[in-house]
Amino acid sequence: MKARLNVGVIGLGRLGRVYAADLAQRVPKARLAAVADRQADLAESFARDHGVPKWYQTHEDLLDDKAIDAVAVITSTSTHREVVIDAARRGKAIFCEKPIALSLAEAAEMLQAVAAKGVFFQMGFQRRFDSGYVAAKEKIEAGAIGAPVLLISTSRDPYPPPVEFCDPKVSGGLIADMGIHDFDVARMFMGEVRSVYAVGGALAYPELKAVGDIDNAIINLVFENGTLGVVELSRNAVFGYDIRAEIWGTKGSVQVGYFRQTPILVMTGQGITHDVVPHFMQRFERAYLAQIQDFVDNVLEDRAPRVTGADAVAALRISLAATKSYQENRPVQVSEI
Amino acid sequence: MKARLNVGVIGLGRLGRVYAADLAQRVPKARLAAVADRQADLAESFARDHGVPKWYQTHEDLLDDKAIDAVAVITSTSTHREVVIDAARRGKAIFCEKPIALSLAEAAEMLQAVAAKGVFFQMGFQRRFDSGYVAAKEKIEAGAIGAPVLLISTSRDPYPPPVEFCDPKVSGGLIADMGIHDFDVARMFMGEVRSVYAVGGALAYPELKAVGDIDNAIINLVFENGTLGVVELSRNAVFGYDIRAEIWGTKGSVQVGYFRQTPILVMTGQGITHDVVPHFMQRFERAYLAQIQDFVDNVLEDRAPRVTGADAVAALRISLAATKSYQENRPVQVSEI
Amino acid sequence: MKARLNVGVIGLGRLGRVYAADLAQRVPKARLAAVADRQADLAESFARDHGVPKWYQTHEDLLDDKAIDAVAVITSTSTHREVVIDAARRGKAIFCEKPIALSLAEAAEMLQAVAAKGVFFQMGFQRRFDSGYVAAKEKIEAGAIGAPVLLISTSRDPYPPPVEFCDPKVSGGLIADMGIHDFDVARMFMGEVRSVYAVGGALAYPELKAVGDIDNAIINLVFENGTLGVVELSRNAVFGYDIRAEIWGTKGSVQVGYFRQTPILVMTGQGITHDVVPHFMQRFERAYLAQIQDFVDNVLEDRAPRVTGADAVAALRISLAATKSYQENRPVQVSEI
Amino acid sequence: MKARLNVGVIGLGRLGRVYAADLAQRVPKARLAAVADRQADLAESFARDHGVPKWYQTHEDLLDDKAIDAVAVITSTSTHREVVIDAARRGKAIFCEKPIALSLAEAAEMLQAVAAKGVFFQMGFQRRFDSGYVAAKEKIEAGAIGAPVLLISTSRDPYPPPVEFCDPKVSGGLIADMGIHDFDVARMFMGEVRSVYAVGGALAYPELKAVGDIDNAIINLVFENGTLGVVELSRNAVFGYDIRAEIWGTKGSVQVGYFRQTPILVMTGQGITHDVVPHFMQRFERAYLAQIQDFVDNVLEDRAPRVTGADAVAALRISLAATKSYQENRPVQVSEI
Repeated sequence: MKARLNVGVIGLGRLGRVYAADLAQRVPKARLAAVADRQADLAESFARDHGVPKWYQTHEDLLDDKAIDAVAVITSTSTHREVVIDAARRGKAIFCEKPIALSLAEAAEMLQAVAAKGVFFQMGFQRRFDSGYVAAKEKIEAGAIGAPVLLISTSRDPYPPPVEFCDPKVSGGLIADMGIHDFDVARMFMGEVRSVYAVGGALAYPELKAVGDIDNAIINLVFENGTLGVVELSRNAVFGYDIRAEIWGTKGSVQVGYFRQTPILVMTGQGITHDVVPHFMQRFERAYLAQIQDFVDNVLEDRAPRVTGADAVAALRISLAATKSYQENRPVQVSEI
Repeated sequence: MKARLNVGVIGLGRLGRVYAADLAQRVPKARLAAVADRQADLAESFARDHGVPKWYQTHEDLLDDKAIDAVAVITSTSTHREVVIDAARRGKAIFCEKPIALSLAEAAEMLQAVAAKGVFFQMGFQRRFDSGYVAAKEKIEAGAIGAPVLLISTSRDPYPPPVEFCDPKVSGGLIADMGIHDFDVARMFMGEVRSVYAVGGALAYPELKAVGDIDNAIINLVFENGTLGVVELSRNAVFGYDIRAEIWGTKGSVQVGYFRQTPILVMTGQGITHDVVPHFMQRFERAYLAQIQDFVDNVLEDRAPRVTGADAVAALRISLAATKSYQENRPVQVSEI
Repeated sequence: MKARLNVGVIGLGRLGRVYAADLAQRVPKARLAAVADRQADLAESFARDHGVPKWYQTHEDLLDDKAIDAVAVITSTSTHREVVIDAARRGKAIFCEKPIALSLAEAAEMLQAVAAKGVFFQMGFQRRFDSGYVAAKEKIEAGAIGAPVLLISTSRDPYPPPVEFCDPKVSGGLIADMGIHDFDVARMFMGEVRSVYAVGGALAYPELKAVGDIDNAIINLVFENGTLGVVELSRNAVFGYDIRAEIWGTKGSVQVGYFRQTPILVMTGQGITHDVVPHFMQRFERAYLAQIQDFVDNVLEDRAPRVTGADAVAALRISLAATKSYQENRPVQVSEI
Repeated sequence: MKARLNVGVIGLGRLGRVYAADLAQRVPKARLAAVADRQADLAESFARDHGVPKWYQTHEDLLDDKAIDAVAVITSTSTHREVVIDAARRGKAIFCEKPIALSLAEAAEMLQAVAAKGVFFQMGFQRRFDSGYVAAKEKIEAGAIGAPVLLISTSRDPYPPPVEFCDPKVSGGLIADMGIHDFDVARMFMGEVRSVYAVGGALAYPELKAVGDIDNAIINLVFENGTLGVVELSRNAVFGYDIRAEIWGTKGSVQVGYFRQTPILVMTGQGITHDVVPHFMQRFERAYLAQIQDFVDNVLEDRAPRVTGADAVAALRISLAATKSYQENRPVQVSEI
């Protein structure tokens, strides 16, 4: 086992910078060896500010760097196919942020390339590393709630992305873009999904209709074992960021999530008030760190990934089924996709 | 206006006794003049214990009592048609516990009889009188959350009724029996329902399959104005009674409900623990009282009922549509029913 | 045992009307036979509105009423001595609202009169009947927190009484007037108090200095068994009413109290807000009812009172010691009083 | 301004290792240049594991290292005087963990040495950097609660230190050792303290009596402006770590603190349960990081320290007054010390 893993980060958008900063400063077993971004100035300034020895403008150049053992692919989803396949061909261990791709065909190509070269491949679904979801899973496996029979998974953003990013041809649409986290959570707690039914609408931001997207959706799930789920998605939690899950079993229930970020209450004549979780960076800061640490440890110690390409494909398949259900207003079997 | 309303209670089951005791002791403007129950000994002992002047075994005998101005009909749903029609014919003001009937045809007959005699008729949906639901409605009407776009209404019982009461021919089935409260809440906050889709199963109590009932259901709602809802029903909140609602708007959200009954926390090496709401009597004790007070006040002051026969029919129609959707596994338009 | 106890209420101030209304409508085993108040019109209108058969202007006239078995004395503290002694001499069972008197000498006279006639005497300290305090006591007696070593008891009012009622010659001053509840709670959980030390000030309402009263105080307690306590009193919980207790033991802790009255949360861009408990009537409505029911049951069933004259004297003695400590700025032994 | 500050950490106990790890990995503007600990093997292994270039066994050797700009002194309190004076003489910028010393004489000597050489000196009181305390301070300064009139500051540990560390000659005793944080918080929110009164006892761990220490204390504070405070200290919060503050003002109140560490609730037939904050590392992890970042920034940017030697002396003086009050069972003026 190597003492430290040389990692390159490809894509320095909002989330890419988080992973890169974590790798630079908070993952002792990793060394951030290089960053790459199409915006050369962004790559250069990030490298300078964080003491990263090398920076590149293209993913190919970074991948050609022999000193690099592993890469984190945090580019826009539409480029995942190309970058992951290139990385696999060069034998790099790969961490790929969700969703794996916008289509099953692309995902299949990627996983073929990974399998062909036998490289390590781990998907990013950070809720699996959040202390609440982890504790819930442990409690359930310890029998605290008996057999799970119902899942409720909720994702609410404080506002929508810029409308140009909401075009379903780019984002996959609300159900795929936001819901994929919840579909992964659903599988984590309940198993495989048999069928879905979705309703939705552009209810709070009618301007989304122009690009064909929606801002609220409710998706019913029936799992293969007959148990039930519901996924609640919204872009108008205008007060903040609301991520929750409830798992109901034959002997009890677990609730995951919280609303208050700063531990103070203000009590005045207007009632009792507290703040909220602003957005995903505050909510999942530690989960992102735990996840990339896990990737580094897995590669160094030659362990299996906790979230696989097959997991990513399964979540994608559910999101495509749910999108189809919404479009056709009928229950859709996941096996149809 | 009369100073006090002479009220008779028909049906002294669990809930009938609550209404009767409230009328006997806690509604100053009412006088509990008589009670009736098919179990004569129950009627007799209740009358004796609560100082009620008269008791009867049949609803007809109570209705023939000229001293009685108004009746509360708390009998089993299958008898509502007969009792309400008999009461209307004798000119009594009527309070009828939900659901109005098991079929729309029965409900129509009842409302025709009521209209024919012009008697006062008020339906019982006690959540409309709960301080939380009332405050939520007021906040929303005051603009606190902007325009509502999504409703989540939850009902979870700690255990199922005895299996013989779960036969859908008697109870209407889980979706109608439990969900009718949530369908009424949905209309209260969001308006009329256009279509529904329901999934469900006998997941925690497989013995319910023998009578054809289920113990969990998720029902999607699309309202006529395009907004969305989801109703979550369960019989296996084994820790207690869980009644909640969330209404999400363009400018905020309101959450209704609570989990802790007794205001203490116990903190030990095993963590922090508190108790729960045991069941509906603890959760809605004050709402039941407020509701029957409202009925008495409305009759005495000649005011319109807050919950009408039309409200009851609308909720029943949604529950029938949702039941049909579950049975046929397809979205159902409420107008189909 | 009589079937129903004929009770008279003396004093129809804010709290007297609560007890009287409870006795009139919510205590089946009691019959509110008469009310008395120096304001004749108040007595008359209350009697008329609540169907009370008789009303009086003086306590003597009510006490001379042979039909009355028991009286609730809810007059101002300065009159307790006279009314209780008169009631005892006429053989009535007595419920007396706290505090028993403003001085130990008065209290001794009262209890002598009670003892001389052997009448039933119960003090009002409603926190002992609150579901939270009751549950805490039960948990502690069941061993949930091991041996108690520390008590924190908190009372905060939303605003001070009218300044003329704050004159310590009338009210006893903040420490006696408010704190007596906490001193009773202290004894309920921890046992007898050995010494006290108090600090205080007119910090939020400087106008109280004109009458010699204060609006905030902190009182340290050392119990005879060496355990510790602190009582926190305030008149400026401007948002509402804040009554709490914490009992810390060798194996855990119990917290009593709550902040939210109505079960809703409002979530907007300004954060998450809920309402508060407005004042003592909302907080202790059920405790007042449970307490007067207990009194009626005890008299009818010839049971010992749950809160005795000796309890009242002990709490009074602590409040006098604490007041003296505040005045002299030194620790005071309760035995000095 | 230098780009990065070369920092040495002296003392690698539990807390020293936290600061050192933060400086090594999480403070980009700092470079952990060396560590020192009397246990040479501890210093060596820490340096090796964290990539620290140099390690020393004595503080003198570290201080003689010319490459080092600044030191964090995290040794046991009894050594602060010697280490800080040595560091000042060598011109190092100094961060010193609380308490500054066990006596005012020692503290005076230290601050004289600091002043004589004009070195930067910042004290460690991490609650001042906790998001809750910071937000409370901001709210109060923005006028959210009017003028503060009362402070409650609470510190409860889950268990006492090993009994040999509880000897007041080493630790200063419970009131100084734990309470100094609360006395600093008191000054942060309310200003200078005029007098104190303390009660305490070895109530949960009688074995502490052997070394002359106690495990619970309540300390009343009167501030120079006449406002009030109470500090509650305990070693037997057996469930976890309980750090809270309440500041009450003329127009409202702020509560700081929280009980639940992991964001899940488990709901079963035994009630609703959640976990707790285990200990100070979980509660203040981010505050420790923010504090040492602040130190580094202040030195690099030549800014005044947020917590000064004078602050440390003031808190120490209060703790000595409170200890004396406990010993002599009388109110003590801080000016007596």
